[in-house]
Parts: sequence; C-alpha cells; structure tokens
Amino acid sequence: MSSKRIAGPEIERLIQLLAKVPGLGPRSARRAALHLIKKKEQLLAPLAAAMGEAVEKVRVCSRCGNVDTSDPCTVCTDPRRDGATIIVVEDVSDLWALERAGAISARYHVLGGTLSPLDGVGPDDLNIRSLVSRVAEGGVTEVILAVNATVEGQTTAHYITDQLAGLDVRVTRLAHGVPVGGELDYLDEGTLAAALRSRTAF
Amino acid sequence: MSSKRIAGPEIERLIQLLAKVPGLGPRSARRAALHLIKKKEQLLAPLAAAMGEAVEKVRVCSRCGNVDTSDPCTVCTDPRRDGATIIVVEDVSDLWALERAGAISARYHVLGGTLSPLDGVGPDDLNIRSLVSRVAEGGVTEVILAVNATVEGQTTAHYITDQLAGLDVRVTRLAHGVPVGGELDYLDEGTLAAALRSRTAF
Repeated sequence: MSSKRIAGPEIERLIQLLAKVPGLGPRSARRAALHLIKKKEQLLAPLAAAMGEAVEKVRVCSRCGNVDTSDPCTVCTDPRRDGATIIVVEDVSDLWALERAGAISARYHVLGGTLSPLDGVGPDDLNIRSLVSRVAEGGVTEVILAVNATVEGQTTAHYITDQLAGLDVRVTRLAHGVPVGGELDYLDEGTLAAALRSRTAF
Repeated sequence: MSSKRIAGPEIERLIQLLAKVPGLGPRSARRAALHLIKKKEQLLAPLAAAMGEAVEKVRVCSRCGNVDTSDPCTVCTDPRRDGATIIVVEDVSDLWALERAGAISARYHVLGGTLSPLDGVGPDDLNIRSLVSRVAEGGVTEVILAVNATVEGQTTAHYITDQLAGLDVRVTRLAHGVPVGGELDYLDEGTLAAALRSRTAF
C-alpha cells in the first residue's frame, strides 16, 4: 500500500491481524479483509462472534492436553471411544490429522512438544507425567506413540517408553514405510530402507 | 473430519466460517483455527476485537461509494489528494489496487459493479448519478475511467461518457498494452493488437 492512508485505522489493523493467520499473506489478507467488510452481516459479524466465543470458551483439557471448549474435552468424554488405547501425539494438529484418517477410535494424549535439551525443553515441560498417571490408573492396554519421525520425536518416544516400563501396557509406534500414493523415486533412502525391512506378505 | 466430533461446536463453527474467507479452504481453515486457538491471547482475541470493531464502524462513503470506517471516507477527506481528478472504478478492490500502484494522487468514485442488462443491473443500480453530480458541482477537470477491460466494463464506460457529455471535464481511460514484465508469447491477440496500435517512441 502506498504511504497514503486509504482506509481507517480499524481496517488497517484488521488487515495486519489477518496477515498473521496461517494461509494468508499480506496480499491475501487485504483481499480477505475487503471480502469480510463487504459481507459484513453474512460473514464478518458471525466470524467475529465465533472468534469471541472461542476466546471465552477455549481451554486446555486437564486430562489429555487437547484444546477444546470443554474440560475434559470432547474426545476424552466421548463414550464411543476405546479408552483402552491412548495415542500419544506431539501437538493438537496431529490429533486432528489422525482423526481425519478415521482409522482408529481411541483416546489421545497431547505432549505439547518434544524433548529438546538444546531448546531447554525437558520432561517436566511436556505432558509426560500425566500420561504415566493415566496409564497407572489402569484400564489402558496400549499406548501408541504417534510422534513425528524426527530425532526429537524419537528421543521423546524412547523416554516415554522408559517411563512406562513396569506398567502393564503395550507400547507401539506408527509404521514407517512408503506413503500411500507415493513414488519410490522421490523417497529418501531412510524411508525406503525402513519400508524394505518392514515388508509384509503380498 | 471423521463422523466423530473431536471438538466442541464453537470450534467447528469457527472452522466453517473461516473456510468461507477467500484464500482459506476447508483444510487451511482447520489449520488457521488451530493456530488462532493456540495463540488465543496474542492473535485470536485481538482479531475478534478488530472484526467486532469493523462490524460496528464500517460504512459506505456517501460521497464516493468506498467502504471505510468514516463517512466521508479517508480518501475523500484526505487534503493532500488532487480533487480535480476522479478515478472511476467498479469495485473497492480496484481502488485498493490502484492505490498500491501509487502512481497518482486522486480521488475515486466506486460504481459498485457494471451495467449488465442480462443480470438486471441498470444505471440506477450503480453510483453513476452521484458521479455526474460530483462533476457537475465543479472543480473536477478529469474523470479517468478505470473499469475492467471487459464487455460490461466498456459498456459502462461508454454510458458514463455519454452522461458526462456537456460537462466541462476531460474523460480518459486506462491504456491497453503489454503488462510490465509480461512475455509477448503468452499474451492474447487483442492485447498485442492494442499495444501495437498505441505504440510510443522509444
């Protein structure tokens, strides 16, 4: 935008804030702001209200670390889910991604990150103790470690496995292999080696 | 998302509304919602407030048809702008685009669309009468028709030119030609022909 102001400070501020939303940049934020302003009653007002309500109601689930508008969260209180299986994820976005896959009906535990001594993230900065407590309470037969396949993720997985040792629970991790729809030519050697090692009967 | 609910209805609604923002689809709306929720204090709350304020304050400028938080708008009241030149645009987004170019310091008149008999859009549905009044008040020496180079845009331009006939004002239009940075090979014949006809000394 040129140095001249072309709209009131409220609109400039709306554009600035929209530009911080992932998926929108400075240019698309302007386009989005204008669209919202033009659809004031149909879109801007409801969106403002929905955001205000989210600000009021969103909290972190004291049981699993998920974010939701209720505590315990929707996932923790869903009676149709298998409470004997806990999927451990780094972040809420991973929980959402696994739910989109819809492959399993379990409960979750959100760590809130990975162990990273260099960044000063130790076990007490993650929701690991609460995971061990949940398992120790009983009724959990399997913990699936669905952490990222990064060094930090794997380090965290090993640490959690150690913490759960002695408890009567099976600890598993996600399979490594070729992504569905993926082309071998574009895959890294580590993934290909893992896929070969874990080959299954055809 | 699977049939199972993984978050409260407030969050689902936030995602649904975000998906209607241009630039965000269903998938990126989820990502945006999660980011906003996690940055509740730094981003979600300020954005909700900014949107609420926009809902309260945004209005259409009674003078030029621009949208802004004041009436007359920031552009109409800016004393540094040349009031003798009015740039006529179809939409507020065109005003913003021309201001980004920063090539001229003029005032604007936003038509709110183009003449389109098939869609039932006649002269009285556009801000044409108010444009003629502004020019008739005096002090305007040039009207630049910055409408789109479409059939509807050009029809509208011709209609406006007719309406302004008899008033002491120069009516101009944007130049046609090769976009700056554009490659001839990818340009349509109409643009190339126009660029040839309007060639200038090198």
